[in-house]
Amino acid sequence: MVIDLRSDTVTQPTPAMREAMYRAEVGDDVYGEDPTVNRLQELAAQRLGKEAALFVTSGTMGNTTAMLTHVPRGAAAIVGDQAHIYRYEGGGAARLGGIQLWVVPNQPDGGFDQEQLAAAITDESDEHTPPTALLCLENTHNRCGGRVLSLEQMTALCGLAHARGLKVHVDGARIFNAAVALGVPVRQLVAEADSVMFCLSKGLSAPVGSLLVGSRDFIERARWVRKVLGGGLRQAGILAAAGIVALEQMVERLAEDHAHARLLAEGLADLPQVRLDAQRVQTNIVIFRLQDGERVLPEERCAEFLVRLKDEGVLLSSMGNGLLRAVTHYGIERSHIEMALLAIKRTLEATLPRTRVGRLS
Amino acid sequence: MVIDLRSDTVTQPTPAMREAMYRAEVGDDVYGEDPTVNRLQELAAQRLGKEAALFVTSGTMGNTTAMLTHVPRGAAAIVGDQAHIYRYEGGGAARLGGIQLWVVPNQPDGGFDQEQLAAAITDESDEHTPPTALLCLENTHNRCGGRVLSLEQMTALCGLAHARGLKVHVDGARIFNAAVALGVPVRQLVAEADSVMFCLSKGLSAPVGSLLVGSRDFIERARWVRKVLGGGLRQAGILAAAGIVALEQMVERLAEDHAHARLLAEGLADLPQVRLDAQRVQTNIVIFRLQDGERVLPEERCAEFLVRLKDEGVLLSSMGNGLLRAVTHYGIERSHIEMALLAIKRTLEATLPRTRVGRLS
Amino acid sequence: MVIDLRSDTVTQPTPAMREAMYRAEVGDDVYGEDPTVNRLQELAAQRLGKEAALFVTSGTMGNTTAMLTHVPRGAAAIVGDQAHIYRYEGGGAARLGGIQLWVVPNQPDGGFDQEQLAAAITDESDEHTPPTALLCLENTHNRCGGRVLSLEQMTALCGLAHARGLKVHVDGARIFNAAVALGVPVRQLVAEADSVMFCLSKGLSAPVGSLLVGSRDFIERARWVRKVLGGGLRQAGILAAAGIVALEQMVERLAEDHAHARLLAEGLADLPQVRLDAQRVQTNIVIFRLQDGERVLPEERCAEFLVRLKDEGVLLSSMGNGLLRAVTHYGIERSHIEMALLAIKRTLEATLPRTRVGRLS
Amino acid sequence: MVIDLRSDTVTQPTPAMREAMYRAEVGDDVYGEDPTVNRLQELAAQRLGKEAALFVTSGTMGNTTAMLTHVPRGAAAIVGDQAHIYRYEGGGAARLGGIQLWVVPNQPDGGFDQEQLAAAITDESDEHTPPTALLCLENTHNRCGGRVLSLEQMTALCGLAHARGLKVHVDGARIFNAAVALGVPVRQLVAEADSVMFCLSKGLSAPVGSLLVGSRDFIERARWVRKVLGGGLRQAGILAAAGIVALEQMVERLAEDHAHARLLAEGLADLPQVRLDAQRVQTNIVIFRLQDGERVLPEERCAEFLVRLKDEGVLLSSMGNGLLRAVTHYGIERSHIEMALLAIKRTLEATLPRTRVGRLS
Repeated sequence: MVIDLRSDTVTQPTPAMREAMYRAEVGDDVYGEDPTVNRLQELAAQRLGKEAALFVTSGTMGNTTAMLTHVPRGAAAIVGDQAHIYRYEGGGAARLGGIQLWVVPNQPDGGFDQEQLAAAITDESDEHTPPTALLCLENTHNRCGGRVLSLEQMTALCGLAHARGLKVHVDGARIFNAAVALGVPVRQLVAEADSVMFCLSKGLSAPVGSLLVGSRDFIERARWVRKVLGGGLRQAGILAAAGIVALEQMVERLAEDHAHARLLAEGLADLPQVRLDAQRVQTNIVIFRLQDGERVLPEERCAEFLVRLKDEGVLLSSMGNGLLRAVTHYGIERSHIEMALLAIKRTLEATLPRTRVGRLS
Repeated sequence: MVIDLRSDTVTQPTPAMREAMYRAEVGDDVYGEDPTVNRLQELAAQRLGKEAALFVTSGTMGNTTAMLTHVPRGAAAIVGDQAHIYRYEGGGAARLGGIQLWVVPNQPDGGFDQEQLAAAITDESDEHTPPTALLCLENTHNRCGGRVLSLEQMTALCGLAHARGLKVHVDGARIFNAAVALGVPVRQLVAEADSVMFCLSKGLSAPVGSLLVGSRDFIERARWVRKVLGGGLRQAGILAAAGIVALEQMVERLAEDHAHARLLAEGLADLPQVRLDAQRVQTNIVIFRLQDGERVLPEERCAEFLVRLKDEGVLLSSMGNGLLRAVTHYGIERSHIEMALLAIKRTLEATLPRTRVGRLS
Repeated sequence: MVIDLRSDTVTQPTPAMREAMYRAEVGDDVYGEDPTVNRLQELAAQRLGKEAALFVTSGTMGNTTAMLTHVPRGAAAIVGDQAHIYRYEGGGAARLGGIQLWVVPNQPDGGFDQEQLAAAITDESDEHTPPTALLCLENTHNRCGGRVLSLEQMTALCGLAHARGLKVHVDGARIFNAAVALGVPVRQLVAEADSVMFCLSKGLSAPVGSLLVGSRDFIERARWVRKVLGGGLRQAGILAAAGIVALEQMVERLAEDHAHARLLAEGLADLPQVRLDAQRVQTNIVIFRLQDGERVLPEERCAEFLVRLKDEGVLLSSMGNGLLRAVTHYGIERSHIEMALLAIKRTLEATLPRTRVGRLS
Repeated sequence: MVIDLRSDTVTQPTPAMREAMYRAEVGDDVYGEDPTVNRLQELAAQRLGKEAALFVTSGTMGNTTAMLTHVPRGAAAIVGDQAHIYRYEGGGAARLGGIQLWVVPNQPDGGFDQEQLAAAITDESDEHTPPTALLCLENTHNRCGGRVLSLEQMTALCGLAHARGLKVHVDGARIFNAAVALGVPVRQLVAEADSVMFCLSKGLSAPVGSLLVGSRDFIERARWVRKVLGGGLRQAGILAAAGIVALEQMVERLAEDHAHARLLAEGLADLPQVRLDAQRVQTNIVIFRLQDGERVLPEERCAEFLVRLKDEGVLLSSMGNGLLRAVTHYGIERSHIEMALLAIKRTLEATLPRTRVGRLS
């Protein structure tokens, strides 16, 4: 048996999803005639408190579609230096849309320093520099360890952007994790945003799919962008059926993932070879560093550790530069966390024994 | 009951597909771990006689991925002036890849005049003109009425392109229709092509999906392009399961669609208001023109005809400029064709009575 | 001595231009402070009857700037299949701006069939196809042999485009040749166009430069595009000074080039190896075909002819596919035309003797 | 009389340049036949120690051309967060070439921390992230106050990049300032770089133009990129003639600009309202901050100061966020610096009197 903590994208569809897909009423969604897709889109718009929604096959497609829709040719978008959009989406904004990304350092919580953000916004006064059209936020923030931007932060950042004439897009791949962690309705959390992308296929456990939500006009234009990206599907209702189950049955469950992540974090923080502040774990992501005595463990030894741990039946992922990531999700129970901790401890003792001694002395 | 002849994209999944999707073994395909996707890709590569295959969510994504993979920045691709790639894929090659399309008139059969084609190829001798890197063929050819390029034509066109250093991509959305119509194994038909895209979601009746096939190296690079387009899916095995059924069970059946299309064409050709050469119908597409006496029927009256016909329970699609299209597919039986012909006749008599008289006199 | 008829781009600056450049008052044009550039831009706007003008370093930069300014991301532009923009500008619209070109066949006079043009315009009703935002005209038309679009044609084509919501850009690299040939003021000829690019460096003999003219708002936005293309110059007044001389002193002179071209065309038409209708030569471009008896001369023998002719001191250029081009310009006198005709005749007799005999028999 | 310290781009051509332009032998450079352009290109290649060179009309065109030539579609380039390429070139790499810029913080001297740089390089192992193809350096570094990267730094950074398979492009708009400041031959300073762009129009005082240098193959491909950007000029020898004078007569003179800048910096550092470390001024750029007591002067009061100073006949430029910049150049003598210091002092006393008192107390 494998305890796969690499990502919440590895979740298997639930039996209810299998059933819903089996029975899904479908039509040709390129003609707008798939009733299940239409129902999912209405449900998503309603849950997020926006006028309309568009089903897309991945978070990357949703984010890229949003950027190409919001940002006219010759304008720029602001992203965090740790943003998924900047680091893990193939450079799509630039590559497919010719959009220059303007990179502002993320704060440890995944947000921005307001002064730095304000200083990064450019207008149309100087032809040397593309004017800024869009601010991209990420909530929860993957590379910042699943950290949550609070309602106050969301409101303040959106306010700053709007005051300067920018639109705001939220990469909300895990926005329901944020809402659950905050105990705030998701629609309230994104109330000030112009568009939001969220994933059905992560903590919500659907096999495939994300949704982009926003104003009716925005979604109408986004549909054109989705089409050119190759995201116009036919009987997509098969996938949408699982998405409806995800939205209706799988949101509240995220609290369990958060509890499991905290449990894992606390266990890890106790290990002498691990550098991690368990108090900072807010949702289902745990990012930590391995160290050999006082030094960060070199990349090749991290890789070696992951291979050995895999032999013990536990999978983690590497974020590069000595950072490891564990993500809890549907299918991971409390007992799995306990087994994973034992396996990690055993593997660390085998591979980093000097560290431990070093710490004890 | 509606007889929907707008496109073969409207097909419902078969019971066997529903069953296969329900039971599909799935994994995270971004990690390459979905066993059903892997199985479909191997099957597709094998059927098409290429080294490797990549599952994509639409024909547009497959074609655009192929173009962005084959054509380096600053080079051009040749397409037919009636090509789906040129007319119906959102301008993706230019818009997303900066590729200039070099447009050569299609012959009525969907192929090219070899001399015109040869004259359109440019090399690196003149910095005014991007060098040609790719020739795109389409087989069967949608806007040319589902016409089939023969094995000899395919071989000759590929030969000409290769002799000039070009790669050849085949938009084979309906390549199995071509193979069935010719009675030639599909792998033989595309043997000389460097890449082929074919659709599971048209005549083969799967709900969603297409495959891009080519050399191992090509598919490896195409995977990167698919990712940036947002085509990296998670538990895509759900869709792939239906795709396997499509490839294994639905290919031979296409001959029925061709017979039905021919039946429809012959019936239409008998109507005085229709201009159509039924002998030219080779596969599952029937394109025809309505005329009012000697004149082509104006666009707005075509539209009116389609609305009235819809009230009769028959759906056709408009190709613009007075052309109408009917496509046969899974779920359309001989009896539906007969009913559709009656409905078309009735509607024409109601909307174009003068035409009929004009012809009879 | 060489008689260089390859292009009117080979012209040397006149003594008055040399003098004007020597004395030019200059400033930093990126700051908008070059008085000579500003003067040229005002003069150009005035001559063309538009609100504003922008100095660019080439016709290609002017046309590409216009297209990237007029066409929003995701929209398309219509060009003729013989257009310089389509064939000789490096694919810049697609490559730099992601603009799909929609190619409509040029009529022999460089214009369009109105019905074909109307049928090529698409709107926002179908997400498969980018909506058309721009029509590009070319006057005089290079590959159509320097043919002139009349005032009536210009008005009709602009009218059709505007009625469908398109902008019109005129590639007027040689618009002054058109105006002189028609005897119509240039501002009247382009009155209905939204923007015009014209070259100082062709028949007008300036060393470097073109101008883009249009509304004040359009030119303001075009300035941004010029900047990103690398067209923001510093003390550009050096070049602009020659441009002012070109506009003030060199326009009327174009009539001589036209007379010389006609003289050349008539002489060529008399040669048995030449296929050319001298009556169609309206401006300073003469395009003709060499033939060996009844057959078009193969490309490699055309190339050989050009090399031999060069040895005789006469330079022509090849247009590909057996077409040769001669262009008259400043510095080419009547006597040069006579000498060139003799040299061409001599060279043809040496390289294509059988042809001549063939014709005579 | 105005003392214009906004930029070294405002320089007027020298009398020798005027003379050289007047007498320049010119031809059509699109055909490669302008002897003066060819001579300048050979001279530039020789001076920079590279195989070949290409004349372009601006630094932006040179840098963008280099990036589009070095970086294949789908790859990324690393730039500093203070780089001119990132901030002041209109986003051309992304906008025109679809290149994602990977932004690494510049050190105060304009270089990079080697560990941060190494961590930012990605390879082809993960399809989420475009592989890095290019490192861009800037020497001297504009926004870092004209700081110079030493020979050792250049060698180390190029070494790191090459070891990881990257190419290195140097934005050497002011590379001759760096060479003069270091007392190192410029060809030695850029010996390890794959390409260099340098400007004729800044300290070297030519009216227009920059050069891109590199291997013969690189320049051959760059020529194509220049063409599509609209940088193919006709009788460009006019401008090249001034460029030859710039390279032959104006390089050594840069030491004077540096001395003047140091003089200015020392004078400014004595002013209580100025925050500036005069020891850090190495070349012809002086960047400083105004402060009101302990606080940075707000943007609008900086703007007001610049307006008042302009009334006193001295022009500086604003870098945003309270930073002002002065640049010395040809035409600025020691006496101008002294006059400028007096004017700045007077204006500060009039606009920021409290500051001064604040400091004295």
